[in-house]
Amino acid sequence: MSAPAQLVARTGAHIAERLALSAATAEGAHTATAEVPGWLAEHRRAGATVVRRIPFAGLDHWSFAPDTGDLRHSSGRFFTIEGLHVVRGGAEWQQPIIVQPEIGILGILAKEFDGVLHFLMQAKMEPGNPNLVQLSPTVQATRSNYTKAHGGTEVRYLEHFLAPRPQQVLTDVLQSEHGAWFYQKRNRNMIVEVDGDVPVHDAFRWLTLGQILRLLRLDNVVNMDARTVLASAPALPAETRALSSDSALLAWFTGERARHDVRARRMPLREIAGWQTDEHSVSRVDGRFFRVVAVSVEGAGREVAGWTQPIIEPVEHGVVGFAYRLFDGVPHVLAHARVEGGFLDTVELAPTVQCVPSNYAPAGAEERPPFLDALLNASPDRVCYSTVHSEEGGRFLNAESRYLIVETDEATTPTQPPPGYHWVTPGQLNWLAGHSRYVNVQARTLLAVLDAALQGGGTH
Amino acid sequence: MSAPAQLVARTGAHIAERLALSAATAEGAHTATAEVPGWLAEHRRAGATVVRRIPFAGLDHWSFAPDTGDLRHSSGRFFTIEGLHVVRGGAEWQQPIIVQPEIGILGILAKEFDGVLHFLMQAKMEPGNPNLVQLSPTVQATRSNYTKAHGGTEVRYLEHFLAPRPQQVLTDVLQSEHGAWFYQKRNRNMIVEVDGDVPVHDAFRWLTLGQILRLLRLDNVVNMDARTVLASAPALPAETRALSSDSALLAWFTGERARHDVRARRMPLREIAGWQTDEHSVSRVDGRFFRVVAVSVEGAGREVAGWTQPIIEPVEHGVVGFAYRLFDGVPHVLAHARVEGGFLDTVELAPTVQCVPSNYAPAGAEERPPFLDALLNASPDRVCYSTVHSEEGGRFLNAESRYLIVETDEATTPTQPPPGYHWVTPGQLNWLAGHSRYVNVQARTLLAVLDAALQGGGTH
Repeated sequence: MSAPAQLVARTGAHIAERLALSAATAEGAHTATAEVPGWLAEHRRAGATVVRRIPFAGLDHWSFAPDTGDLRHSSGRFFTIEGLHVVRGGAEWQQPIIVQPEIGILGILAKEFDGVLHFLMQAKMEPGNPNLVQLSPTVQATRSNYTKAHGGTEVRYLEHFLAPRPQQVLTDVLQSEHGAWFYQKRNRNMIVEVDGDVPVHDAFRWLTLGQILRLLRLDNVVNMDARTVLASAPALPAETRALSSDSALLAWFTGERARHDVRARRMPLREIAGWQTDEHSVSRVDGRFFRVVAVSVEGAGREVAGWTQPIIEPVEHGVVGFAYRLFDGVPHVLAHARVEGGFLDTVELAPTVQCVPSNYAPAGAEERPPFLDALLNASPDRVCYSTVHSEEGGRFLNAESRYLIVETDEATTPTQPPPGYHWVTPGQLNWLAGHSRYVNVQARTLLAVLDAALQGGGTH
Repeated sequence: MSAPAQLVARTGAHIAERLALSAATAEGAHTATAEVPGWLAEHRRAGATVVRRIPFAGLDHWSFAPDTGDLRHSSGRFFTIEGLHVVRGGAEWQQPIIVQPEIGILGILAKEFDGVLHFLMQAKMEPGNPNLVQLSPTVQATRSNYTKAHGGTEVRYLEHFLAPRPQQVLTDVLQSEHGAWFYQKRNRNMIVEVDGDVPVHDAFRWLTLGQILRLLRLDNVVNMDARTVLASAPALPAETRALSSDSALLAWFTGERARHDVRARRMPLREIAGWQTDEHSVSRVDGRFFRVVAVSVEGAGREVAGWTQPIIEPVEHGVVGFAYRLFDGVPHVLAHARVEGGFLDTVELAPTVQCVPSNYAPAGAEERPPFLDALLNASPDRVCYSTVHSEEGGRFLNAESRYLIVETDEATTPTQPPPGYHWVTPGQLNWLAGHSRYVNVQARTLLAVLDAALQGGGTH
């Protein structure tokens, strides 16, 4: 017996088409792109926030637990810094790791003006951002945030993301964060459309996707949370052919997950080998990778007037880049099935290169990452994209990397790449980013800019 | 600079079409469907396997570890039975759980005869199968298997699954197993096509998908491993419309994953509360759910001549079923976003009902599962599918459930279902089963038979 019901098309390019129109719209209905950096600087000045390094003893409500040495907040909320023991095939290591099991919301509100989708972006201060205030999603909220563990004010616009009607949701997917620093962290990446009037607070601006893409050409302007949300949105199917079919790509990925035997177990921070703790930091004895430090944040303009917190600081700037080639006229990037100890499931697709080069500088310290020199030594006319971005400023201090998309050739990046690497099209990467845990957060930053970079830059 | 290269179509219905043709082929080129049960019985007799319950003290090489009480093999391989502590919102419990982190291969070899795909199915004995020998994939191999931790013989046909060429792979996806009994277990579900000659050992037969679907109408004939592999294969897009678009379905699923706060941590088996250990079993004090027992297996016909092992035995038979409705002429089943403590990520889509009813029999013991009575009390003409299947006989003893697909109506299963439930089409379920961790193993059994059941049975 068939019941009458309102059915909808299972798939449709409708959302992708509207996003593509917004991407093609270079100027918005409300704010000129050129004004945005100044507007961010204004908020920086008005906030007058000062971030200072402090000793762990200066942390308020945070302390090392007497039994485990884990760094935790007295409320038991926010996050903890614990130890992680990773066994991976032959290799094995221990490290500090941020544990924050709750799922946060990274949400961007969308609304049509003059027939074009605009996105409500926020001038948001995060203590770890090198320039403090960056263009951020409408909402960045951990559960602690919106249940007010801060004791702070309400999160603006949050109500739009808590129970949207299905037809308002343009994207909603759980995505992983940095597997080298976070233990199995995932956030909900959402874009929700409103049609009614939305009051626009001073720290928010409606921008088209085209404007945001333009701003993504500037160093340290668009924050990580905004980048990952935009990368999660559906793109128009750009190409119907590729070096691998979609199912062959999935089969390759399954093989990569299956061949890596990774066991990661949490352990007491105080017991991790190869790391040392002093008054100001937990750091590796050999000085590589990152350290755990503490900061105080003073000023206005956030949920609370001032606070202290532990934060992770990479020792040097990173390089994150995709090698890019045209095969038979179709763009492909070289993805790497990368193991990170904090991934929920072993490997995710990462950029061709993702490293801090100085970690590999001492002769014989460790093998230099594949393809790093191919990207760094490329002639300028082959660089389609080169911009410095920092990672999530709420947890990472000055975690800057140069994000690159570089056109390469058969000599440096062969059609048949080495094991663990696979050529994928931008469309395939976007398709996989519509599901959880295929595309890592660094690759998502590059995915967010990929189409625009390939259209705009380089000489093909 | 564009490099010449051989590109392929990203997507194509080619594999799905060939599988659909095989499903429509009621008899195969080599073996009549009607002969298969007799052939399985023959192997049962020839194997002459005897499975006996033994006390834990009778286990060979297996023992409770002195420190944790975990049940483990002296080699450190195969699997362990440990404790699990699950905290889920308000509820909290402890239980034994099988820990087997290695990824196994469940592989079916495919080959065309007379233009139709046939699948090489095995008459395989597993000690936990109620009738010992069932129709199984070509290969069921844990890493311990194929690295010979058994000290046994080689796994036949395994070589076809270790490094297939991309164009030979019809499906290859990591799928979860029982989250109530396994800790984060996943297996690789593969179908690999060969074109050369393949020697067919006596315990193997080439069958069409149509033959296997016919056999899936019989109780305890097709084993779980075969069912999940078949469910993972791509089906033809059956419908283009649904109550929810694919992206709305994903957004709903993301919301379900995000709203359940589940924390599961392994703990020593000896410390789990609410369970008791005697000479023969580890069981719940209230007798519900399952127990851990030990068996000896004697006879021939497997990798090794005889062995002992611990095994999980549910206390009673289960009921697993989908409520099914036509909306505007399009079939939908009611999926449940189900939390299981052993899932790698919180929830997966399960059938409408998945339970052992006797666990809920004692008045007031616990709330009766939603929709259970709607399925059990349906009039016979509404039952599209009703067959008893058992779960993986290598780990579960007599774990039988009645698998049901039952046509329901607005009164019992409303168009707007309660939170945690969602109407999905068979095509949507198949689409999600092409990725990891969306569709649980019980739902995959029903997915394997869904199209055939809806075409063949019930009165619509």
